[in-house]
Order: sequence, then structure tokens, then C-alpha cells
Amino acid sequence: MEESESSTKRVLFATPTPPVPELFPELETPVPVVDLDRLERNLDRAARYATEHQLALRPHIKTHKAPRLAAEQLRRGAVGLTCATPHEAEVMSEVADDILLAYPPVGALRARRIAALPEHVRLTVALDSATAVDDLATAARAVEREIQVYVELDLGMHRVGLPVVDDAITLARKIREAAPLRFGGIAFYPGHIRESVDSQDAKLETLRSSLAEALSRFDRAGLTPRAVSGGSTPTMWRTHELPRVTEFRPGTYIFNDRSTAEIGACEWNDCALTVLATVVSTAVPGQAVIDAGSKALGREPLRGAGGADEGFGSLLEHPEVVVKGMSEEHGLLDLSRTAWRPAVGERVRVVPNHVCIVVHLNDVVFGARGLAVETSWPVAARGRGYTASLGTAATIA
Amino acid sequence: MEESESSTKRVLFATPTPPVPELFPELETPVPVVDLDRLERNLDRAARYATEHQLALRPHIKTHKAPRLAAEQLRRGAVGLTCATPHEAEVMSEVADDILLAYPPVGALRARRIAALPEHVRLTVALDSATAVDDLATAARAVEREIQVYVELDLGMHRVGLPVVDDAITLARKIREAAPLRFGGIAFYPGHIRESVDSQDAKLETLRSSLAEALSRFDRAGLTPRAVSGGSTPTMWRTHELPRVTEFRPGTYIFNDRSTAEIGACEWNDCALTVLATVVSTAVPGQAVIDAGSKALGREPLRGAGGADEGFGSLLEHPEVVVKGMSEEHGLLDLSRTAWRPAVGERVRVVPNHVCIVVHLNDVVFGARGLAVETSWPVAARGRGYTASLGTAATIA
Repeated sequence: MEESESSTKRVLFATPTPPVPELFPELETPVPVVDLDRLERNLDRAARYATEHQLALRPHIKTHKAPRLAAEQLRRGAVGLTCATPHEAEVMSEVADDILLAYPPVGALRARRIAALPEHVRLTVALDSATAVDDLATAARAVEREIQVYVELDLGMHRVGLPVVDDAITLARKIREAAPLRFGGIAFYPGHIRESVDSQDAKLETLRSSLAEALSRFDRAGLTPRAVSGGSTPTMWRTHELPRVTEFRPGTYIFNDRSTAEIGACEWNDCALTVLATVVSTAVPGQAVIDAGSKALGREPLRGAGGADEGFGSLLEHPEVVVKGMSEEHGLLDLSRTAWRPAVGERVRVVPNHVCIVVHLNDVVFGARGLAVETSWPVAARGRGYTASLGTAATIA
Repeated sequence: MEESESSTKRVLFATPTPPVPELFPELETPVPVVDLDRLERNLDRAARYATEHQLALRPHIKTHKAPRLAAEQLRRGAVGLTCATPHEAEVMSEVADDILLAYPPVGALRARRIAALPEHVRLTVALDSATAVDDLATAARAVEREIQVYVELDLGMHRVGLPVVDDAITLARKIREAAPLRFGGIAFYPGHIRESVDSQDAKLETLRSSLAEALSRFDRAGLTPRAVSGGSTPTMWRTHELPRVTEFRPGTYIFNDRSTAEIGACEWNDCALTVLATVVSTAVPGQAVIDAGSKALGREPLRGAGGADEGFGSLLEHPEVVVKGMSEEHGLLDLSRTAWRPAVGERVRVVPNHVCIVVHLNDVVFGARGLAVETSWPVAARGRGYTASLGTAATIA
């Protein structure tokens, strides 16, 4: 505690640097703020690309989880929405009449909840197992609901999806015999391609040939897929290079984030969502502590070349300043690469590594035009939609 | 896609292993479930330790964020609660009349919200800067509320807290002159001591001597601290070894987690909270995919010897099976160290690396006695308590 005594006198006694205009003084921090101009530009760019290449855009709403933003995606021509959870689909049925549940509907409760979605929703489910077909068919029969099914292929991501085409064809046949399910096509997720946009060629070529081979085998089996559903934000601008893809499902593109910029799938100034934070301590020399920690930013690594040593986000106005460490409610700004020295009370905007997680951590997102807060919306589809029933007070002894 | 064709035939056609009894069939997954027997044991053990050593237990509620559980801590003798955010303090004021806000109250909005807490709450705030004193004093004066203040010292954590004792004394004097604030003592957080319990001696000795030196300088300055507030779960059982500590503020101990067990501050069977999950895919050979990913488990490293390569959690019944990778809604179980082979639809319980983050990701937690679900409670203090006002529909063009 002794050695740094003189160097830290500044903490309490130094003349503060001139204050910068306080960012969004009407907002408490930490809080996610969306730049509405950038949001609109991101929405328009994707819609234009889809139109130009005659691709159906079916955005994944996991990124924003807000019916209000889903409605903007649909108004710009999206053919429907993609969801991962039953709760997301329930909430989005307020604004959409065509939903793909891109997640295996395993388990009786999950399958029943999916089959019980409002009737106006044209429903498609992607899956990869006989168990999922059985669970979904049972639930669909109970309510006499037609559900379209995509067979999920593993084309290199190695997460879900069948890696063997013959198994996928067998599953498609099983679906055809499981009315009211209906075989609708195939789905895949190229999430393994997330290096720099300039370095994707080799993996894209492998993906192209795997997909072409799978499609021709489905054709030969008399199961020509009407829909071929793929796409992710890192590869979205090259979707048209893939054979016979009919729709793509990017999520992150609506906001973008530090990882998307790092790999070159957007520019830095396309990052629409930042976490507004306040410097709450500069007591420890060489760093500044903000009130956005792992409960506001998530502990997500930077994708792309930078990697795990590149912190958990960086400042919009000072991209060289990264959040090098976090506790639950503390973010530690590394000041070693900047001459900037913030004062306690100063506000900053953090561009997060992975924006989907940030939204999931929050209940409300604010929208601003320049430096003016214009609106806010609830993250209505976060959580699971479970209800708590407290039971009796005696249950904890 | 071709080379693994034969080895993956089992996915669709192999004879399934006999099913295990389905865990908690009435619950949807993923969902956090607390073993109530273990919870009670954890609560009782901490209360007993506090009594034995005449220490005031002031648990940090960031871990559970539930008034119901805070009430159980108070009923067992806790002198009050510790909170990090204004929202946590607001929610906890339903059950507590003594709250420490262990977070710098920087910013007019935050300070005002703190000063506006219900009047029955005896309020203490820990801080480390002149700005925080000014912000809090202004807010306290506006509502004529007495607030006790702890000066936060950095005793090795290097996060917040003043590393230089003379600066801390200067700040304490400033507080004494800032009525209705009142200097109440000092606070520190030994969060840098999180190695194995057996290897803490050297760091604890340094902490002891830094603390003793700081205390004697406060004494000589005529500022003898009435309260000395420290403690964290990894060091909690050794709090009585620290000089003149009056209260300790562990959080995690109520549930414990994989990291707490790894460092030896609890046993594996003291882990009270698990995430119930369903195996949703075994399509890709060598792994099983569960429906608990980063949005259910958080991407938190294992503390202690294991470190970053040890995944994001492991199975309660198969601790050798770790969640080796995650997407937002997918957890990838590494089956390389087990003979166990789960079927699609099977349920598992994941002990998370860091339980506080898991609770923060959820709105509801269920409580079970053995295999019977008995109760559930809302995570009422999660989020920030911000309200969304949608503004006009025209704000997005």
C-alpha cells in the first residue's frame, strides 16, 4: 500500500480535466442505448441485400427480443421471424404470422407450448432427431395443427444438425409420415465461419460443396427441399453465393457489435447499441472503474483475430480503451493505450463484444437520435416466461 | 460430411440405453432449481460461524436477489443486508431495515435514488472518492436523511477502494464535515483471495498486516472506525483471523457453486443451485447438446486450479462431464471422460461455475426437496428497475 502513495495523490487532490458534456443525463447507468440512425441503416442495408439477391430474409430475433423492432424488420420486407425459445415465439406472435423455431422441440412441455402458439402463426420447426419428431408430432396431433419441419444438417458447425446426409433423408421420410407435420426443407447454420470476412473463402467453398452434395442426394431421394434455410451475420453478405439457399436468418446485424466489426462484417460506426456507463472509481492507479460489469456486458470473448486477450468491449469514442476485467457490477478500463484520463462521474459508451447477450441481460433498451433520447422499449421476449408460485412460507425451515 | 458416416448411424437407429427417471417432469427447461435441504444447511452453517466468532453477518444479496431468501438470512441472525445496486436496495427494503450499499454512489440520479429509499431503512454506503461524497451529500441533504458512510480501502483487490491510507483518512474527514453524512467505518473486499482455501495463508497474512496498519493510522488520526466491514465467500471461514473486523459480507455461500467447491470453501454436495437442462441433440458424434447455453449459465470461468479450460459448469451426477462450449441456447457436453451416454430428451443438472450470474439471468427460481418441487420465487431484484416509455411509433423511420 505504501509504494504508490505519491502517484495517487491526484485521485483526491488533482485539478480535474475539463468535464465533457454529460452523455444522456436523464438516463441512469448502466443502460443499453441504441443509436436509431445506425439501427435504421442496418435494417435498410439487409433489406436491400435480400431484395437484390431475391433471398427471403427471416431475421433471428434473439438479438433484440423486442416486438417493436421485429415489426420494423417485417415492415422492411422480412418474410417472417426466427426464434429459439417458445417464449420468444409467443411474444413475437403479437407482430408476426410466420415464425421459424430454429431449435429442436425436445420434451413434451416444450413441444406442447410450441403447438399452442396462436393459430394465426404459420409455424416451422427445425430439428435433428427422431425423438424431436415424435415429441412435436404428438403435440401437433393433440391440437390438430399443421407444422412445417426443416431437417437440420450439420455443415461444419458441429453443434446440432445431422452430419450424415442419409440420416437426414431418413428423418425427412419419418416427418413425411408424421402428419400433421410436413417436410418443408432443410436448415443449416454456418456459425463456424466467423473469421474475418476476407478469410472466409476456403470454409465457404467447403460449405458450398457440402450443401450441393446434400441437396442432390435429397433430390435423388425424391425429397427436393422447397426451403433451404441458412445464414448468419458474419456470412450474410455472401449468402447469395451458396447453392439454392432460399432464406437467411441473421440476428446480430440489427445492432452489430465489436466482434462483427472486428471480422469486417460491418464498420465500427455501424455498431448501433452501446452500454452507457459511469466512471465510479479511479482510486486504483492506471485504471478507471465503470458501473458496467459482467451483469451488464456479459463475459463474451472478442471474435476474430483479437481473441481472448482483447477484453469484453471497448469504448465507442476511444476504441483503444478496452474493458480488461470485470466483476459483476464493475468494469475495469485499461488506460495503458490512451492519454485520455476520465474523472469520476464521467460517462462513457461501451461497444460490447457480443450484443445478443447484453440485450438478454436487460429489461429495457433506450433509443436515441444523436444525443437526444427519443424512446425506449421493453425486451419483452427475454426470460423464459415461467411463473413463480410461492407455495407456503413453511417450505424453508 | 462423409468420413463419419458409419460411426454416427447410432444417432437414429441404435437401441437407446434404458431411460433414467425423468428429473422434475413438471418443470420446463432450462431452469434453475435449488435443493432446499442444502440451502438450509448453507444458511445455518454461516449463521453458526458468525455466532461462534461474534461477527455480524451482513450477507450480499447479489447472489439470490430474492426477498424471500433475504428474509431467511435475517431470521437466522444476519444484522442486515448488503446490496450493490439501487434496485436491489429498493426491493430488499421490503424485508430489511438495515442495508449497506457496497458500491460508490456516483452520479446525481443514483445518489438521489439511494437517498429516496424507504425511511425505515438504516442506510450505509461504501465509497472511495470525493465526487461520491459530494453526490451522496447533495442527495441526502435534499431529503434530510442521515446516511452512514464507510470509506472503502483497497487491500489488494485493486478494483475500487483507496490504496493509500492517508487519502482514506482525508476522505473520512471530508465525510465528517458533510452532514447529514456520518463517518461509520471502513470497508474492504478481499476478492483477490480466491485460490484454494489451503493456499490462502500468504495473502491472508499480507491482508492482516495491511489492515492492522490502516486501522492504527485511522486511530492515530482520531478516526477510530466503529465498523470494519470485510469478507467474501472464499475467505469467509477465516474472517475471525483478521484484526478488528466487525462484519462480513459473503454472497455466494447461500447456494455455492462449482468454483466455491473447487477452491475448497464448500463441498460438492453443498452446491444448492443447479440448472436443470434437457439433452436436445446427440446428432454430432462425441458430444451431447443441452438447452442451457450462455443465456442460462453465463460464460464464467472456473476459479481455482482448474481454470479456463475446465468449461462453464459440470453435471451434478457426473462431475467429470463439463459444459465445454456454449452458444446462446446450446451447451456442449464433453463426453470424453465418461462412459455415460445420454439420450435425446434426458434431463441433467448443471452445477454452474459462478452461481450469481445464473440467478441474474433468470426471473424465477424453483425450490425442491429431493426430487419433489415444493416452491418457487421471483428473482425480484434482478434488472435495474428502469421503465420503458415507448414514445411515438414514428421514432423509427
